[in-house]
Amino acid sequence: MKIRTVKDSDYDLISPLINEWWGGRQMSDMLPRLFFTHFQDTSFIAEKNGEITGFLIGFLSQSHRQEGYIHFVGVDPDYRNKNIANNLYHEFSVMMKKKKRTIIRCVTSPINKGSIAFHQKMGFEIIKGDTLVNGVSVHSNYDGENGDRVLFIKKID
Amino acid sequence: MKIRTVKDSDYDLISPLINEWWGGRQMSDMLPRLFFTHFQDTSFIAEKNGEITGFLIGFLSQSHRQEGYIHFVGVDPDYRNKNIANNLYHEFSVMMKKKKRTIIRCVTSPINKGSIAFHQKMGFEIIKGDTLVNGVSVHSNYDGENGDRVLFIKKID
Repeated sequence: MKIRTVKDSDYDLISPLINEWWGGRQMSDMLPRLFFTHFQDTSFIAEKNGEITGFLIGFLSQSHRQEGYIHFVGVDPDYRNKNIANNLYHEFSVMMKKKKRTIIRCVTSPINKGSIAFHQKMGFEIIKGDTLVNGVSVHSNYDGENGDRVLFIKKID
Repeated sequence: MKIRTVKDSDYDLISPLINEWWGGRQMSDMLPRLFFTHFQDTSFIAEKNGEITGFLIGFLSQSHRQEGYIHFVGVDPDYRNKNIANNLYHEFSVMMKKKKRTIIRCVTSPINKGSIAFHQKMGFEIIKGDTLVNGVSVHSNYDGENGDRVLFIKKID
């Protein structure tokens, strides 16, 4: 498996896959092309034999100069449980250290139990919210109406 | 009218307004909180008597170091035709010059004729696409399926 930074044209390959990779959830609106155009050096593609098996879209916070943010991560369902997400997070973390960032943040939906377990395994802490969903602390309406989110933080210094 | 940079808590006020301001189009998914958290110094709020009348969300391209990108602009329908969008674009342009950026880019939907006319009036050029919609050059599926976009560019050096 090879990991490389994204290029603009990756969007045309990845966008049609997103709703499928998320099990039918309507997710592609949350990932416009701008992320593939303007945040290339902090976003990564995992490939096997020239096929995209996973991707991570992240950026350097403009406002919080010590922080990096992971916006979107997806892995082909046929390639789950092969450490692809771990490797993508590792690449992002290495890049953050190179860019002198010491904190990584990301958010996920309370419905996405796999994502919550993954982040905890990767050493992320959950930031306390205002309500509990299935025993997990959640920030209600964080991303607007019906936009409850679990907030994660990891220090990497 | 006052223009200031955004703060995180503006999201809670603006997010519920977006679909209404866009005449019922489902737009709020395109504007997650991250833009209000991480791109504060290049995003602006217009206020009158403490009420938000418009906003502009923009950022510095990480990958294209001479470019700034305007992601989202909204004006309260009760405050249209009062130069609020012009003033927000002006503030963004001033900030881009301060940040040594010489190019501003943004995109809009072909359906949004008001936005197309506005950008042309503001001196943006349309980047030639692969098809014509109502006489306007459009990049088909730019933002994925059903994501046709008109692409704008303006040089500000």
